[in-house]
Amino acid sequence: MPTWLSRRRPPVELPRLRPRESATQATRIDLHEVMPDLLPYLGQAAYLQLEAFQTLSRVVGQVDDLAAKESVAAAAGAALSKHQGIVAEIRRRGDDPAEVMQEFADEIDGFTALTTGADWQETLLAVQVTNGLLDDFFIRLAVGLPGDVGPRMAHLLGSDGGQDGVMEVLRNAIGADPRLASRLALWGRRLVGDTLLVARSALHLSGNTATDEERIEPIFTELIAAHTRRMDALGLTA
Amino acid sequence: MPTWLSRRRPPVELPRLRPRESATQATRIDLHEVMPDLLPYLGQAAYLQLEAFQTLSRVVGQVDDLAAKESVAAAAGAALSKHQGIVAEIRRRGDDPAEVMQEFADEIDGFTALTTGADWQETLLAVQVTNGLLDDFFIRLAVGLPGDVGPRMAHLLGSDGGQDGVMEVLRNAIGADPRLASRLALWGRRLVGDTLLVARSALHLSGNTATDEERIEPIFTELIAAHTRRMDALGLTA
Repeated sequence: MPTWLSRRRPPVELPRLRPRESATQATRIDLHEVMPDLLPYLGQAAYLQLEAFQTLSRVVGQVDDLAAKESVAAAAGAALSKHQGIVAEIRRRGDDPAEVMQEFADEIDGFTALTTGADWQETLLAVQVTNGLLDDFFIRLAVGLPGDVGPRMAHLLGSDGGQDGVMEVLRNAIGADPRLASRLALWGRRLVGDTLLVARSALHLSGNTATDEERIEPIFTELIAAHTRRMDALGLTA
Repeated sequence: MPTWLSRRRPPVELPRLRPRESATQATRIDLHEVMPDLLPYLGQAAYLQLEAFQTLSRVVGQVDDLAAKESVAAAAGAALSKHQGIVAEIRRRGDDPAEVMQEFADEIDGFTALTTGADWQETLLAVQVTNGLLDDFFIRLAVGLPGDVGPRMAHLLGSDGGQDGVMEVLRNAIGADPRLASRLALWGRRLVGDTLLVARSALHLSGNTATDEERIEPIFTELIAAHTRRMDALGLTA
């Protein structure tokens, strides 16, 4: 079992509304302190997209409806494009993508195992929830990257990932089976903790729990707020 | 079992060299007679690419080496792009891609089951061999399509499918395990017959065996010659 799985869960607070300005201000200060180095950032982001691609591709094979297959395949293709964009960024620096990604392989493979559901509906919600959250997270971190990599990464990760189509597939599934909603709501809540652990593992933390929590709390609060909006859009309680 | 699986195998002849000019001439006449209608052509081609995408994505998950993952993922992405291009072509005509593909789902799912190997090396060779052959085939048929769809389809299907990267992955696998070469050579030969059956199922045949064979023989001879070149490039006897 990768070591990070046994780490104590961060005491994540429930989303609170606050003026956007002050939240951004607070996050900017924290980012500087906890910002990962460029190569680990790129390696982790690249491997996460590769995993999302693989998971979505698996769901394409599990879905019967051809229109749903189309939508999930489009999302898989988008994850692959993002992966390839990040890999190009690693190559541009003269580094070997396989080497840079390698150190995250065990951690993220473990994460994928944890977020693989009992059926394709759960797995698809998991990709939507975890990828949505981690894309947001890496976009937030991008502002702290050196040179012009940051804007390129923010643009790449923020580009259309086919989420609308996936949302429709999930809504149709929920509409066809009323019991699915409560199962997915529960599953979605379980996923958030594990996803935030992956996000947390990207950061340079001081080891001083109080200081660390103070620094990352504003980022995580925003991530959870965005997560809540995504679950709302599916009619699920976050 | 889909009905086409029980059909008699076509008496495929071994490749013969002949002047390119006369082969093209002969094929052009045959094409006109056996040409499928546009929508079935698009539906079958689209579903084949979707299957190739899914099979390649599965291999991405089975390969350990990250550089190999990269190459196979790129090929998967290329198959998905081709699929999406054909789907766009179906939509442009006001038709529903899912509906147009549906009639080929059983046949091609059966084909995928037949061409799934005992390990990822066999499966990867299978996609390379069957996709290479079928892409060539649908490119040949494209000249018989009405309007400007033909050139667009030929361009789309002829675009880079990441085959070079897949070839390298296969060559490395063969280099690492000398016994693999003979197993893959055998497997490659088995695949050709099944693939030509799929190609054959796309054509409007008269039912008169002698006439049909005369018409499709030049096309199939060319397809097999290209297949032989691909196997040669892997150091495998076709």
